[in-house]
Amino acid sequence: MNALDHPTNFADKLDDAVARAGNPCIVGLDPHLDALPEDFSRARDPQASRAERAETVAEFLCAVIEIAAGRVAAVKPQSAFFEMFGADGAHAWERVVSAAHVAGLLVIGDVKRGDIDSTARAYARAFLQGVDPRHAHSLCDAITVNPLLGSDSIQPFLDACRDHGAGVFVLVRTSNKDSALFQQHGSPPLYERIADAVVKWGCELVGERGFSSVGAVVGATHPRELAELRARMPRTPFLLPGYGAQGAGAADIAAGFTSDGRGALVNSSRGVLFAYKQPQYAGMHWKDAAVRALDAMVREVNAVLR
Amino acid sequence: MNALDHPTNFADKLDDAVARAGNPCIVGLDPHLDALPEDFSRARDPQASRAERAETVAEFLCAVIEIAAGRVAAVKPQSAFFEMFGADGAHAWERVVSAAHVAGLLVIGDVKRGDIDSTARAYARAFLQGVDPRHAHSLCDAITVNPLLGSDSIQPFLDACRDHGAGVFVLVRTSNKDSALFQQHGSPPLYERIADAVVKWGCELVGERGFSSVGAVVGATHPRELAELRARMPRTPFLLPGYGAQGAGAADIAAGFTSDGRGALVNSSRGVLFAYKQPQYAGMHWKDAAVRALDAMVREVNAVLR
Repeated sequence: MNALDHPTNFADKLDDAVARAGNPCIVGLDPHLDALPEDFSRARDPQASRAERAETVAEFLCAVIEIAAGRVAAVKPQSAFFEMFGADGAHAWERVVSAAHVAGLLVIGDVKRGDIDSTARAYARAFLQGVDPRHAHSLCDAITVNPLLGSDSIQPFLDACRDHGAGVFVLVRTSNKDSALFQQHGSPPLYERIADAVVKWGCELVGERGFSSVGAVVGATHPRELAELRARMPRTPFLLPGYGAQGAGAADIAAGFTSDGRGALVNSSRGVLFAYKQPQYAGMHWKDAAVRALDAMVREVNAVLR
Repeated sequence: MNALDHPTNFADKLDDAVARAGNPCIVGLDPHLDALPEDFSRARDPQASRAERAETVAEFLCAVIEIAAGRVAAVKPQSAFFEMFGADGAHAWERVVSAAHVAGLLVIGDVKRGDIDSTARAYARAFLQGVDPRHAHSLCDAITVNPLLGSDSIQPFLDACRDHGAGVFVLVRTSNKDSALFQQHGSPPLYERIADAVVKWGCELVGERGFSSVGAVVGATHPRELAELRARMPRTPFLLPGYGAQGAGAADIAAGFTSDGRGALVNSSRGVLFAYKQPQYAGMHWKDAAVRALDAMVREVNAVLR
């Protein structure tokens, strides 16, 4: 154990943070350049330097973090939108992750990494363990991972869960339009086989609150499968993308929760960040629109859980 | 079309580069810290700053690039080993990719990204298209991608192939120990279904030399499947990992080539970079060992193809 270790079980930390927030919503930090409010138009200005553009994205997201702080348990930054700016984007990522921690939010890095074991170990160090305690503030509490390469590709992340109090959310059934092509392949379908592996991978990482640090990403856009998977994976925390912009509503996500209304996170990204573009918030400052949209989402989700 | 565009078809560029090198070998840049030669021990020194450590990794890889230049067509940097160093690693990545281009090598970024369409578009910009022509030298010529999310997650990369002369190598059958768990699932097995999708995705991106810009990653550790996939995917360039350290030999990779000895790349990473640790190169300077190991690999692979 070194200075980077956080011995508490991630699932316990998460359950605690959700209880304190009073809702299972999280805010996805997906800064689509075209949708950024006019105040941050420099991020899409080809005349500006790459560093200025990445910094502008970070400023926008730090303002979003101020809105999320105290309202929700966690944020989920999407690494692609940072990597777009190369090394400047990596600086912005670290600034945003650190700001979220300072604001008391858990950080779920949406990085969807997956590779052979020795490489997966390097990814676990990159996002969950770190190589230098002086940069521990820019590590994530959990990340999303892609299971296509099998058990040995997941083991380094499980080790990080066990030794560093980290969490992972494994892609099981994604929210996008063509997700069935491979995820439904075979009989039983591939996603069920992945689900069973996730349960197995997580069985030794169950915390005191009854959930494992090995979670699953299950699109809220597939409500029937969501209910089946909830029954199949009783101790697995679910991360439910697809709420809002991707088409899932509050009723669709209900099946993702346990009977006592726990065990799932509902993510909205564009629906909160770019709420100012929606007709019902027309004319409002982007921050006011984001606050209203997030408060409305919290109310809708909590109403379904009661 | 803007200044970032490279209108030539990637598959043609690759076939041409392989013909000029006189062999289909490529060097994987996977800088495992523990294996770095003593000259670069600063990379694993916890007292050194993260920036110094990442810079040391870049210096090692720039020396490897000098060895690779003129000997092989391409290098394949593995992003995990850079991401380990956070923003400092991203700077090192850009330095290494730029150095490879200056040395006349194609760069296949081993990043294995895969996400929903709007996010995949951001990844395509990150690695293949760029957001700023002033940083075009640090873009990759091709990247590896993970297909688990389906066709819509791949489309942005196909667009980059069409509009920017880029290439992709889709994971079909990976070289690791537990790869069968999901890749062999179903009947026909998932990897065959992925293979058929790769052929379909690539059919409009076939260049003048008869190969598509949409390639496949097929582990050389599965020689029987490799032969089946070669027959199934006649116009798909294969990227064959697993040579050397992962256990595949020259005879194992033969089945990955077309009957005229084209259409595949054979990657070795640790077998070249850390050749100085092998008994037959004992006492040799790491550079001399790497040169010998790479020259031996080229001879072995070419012998099988003749």
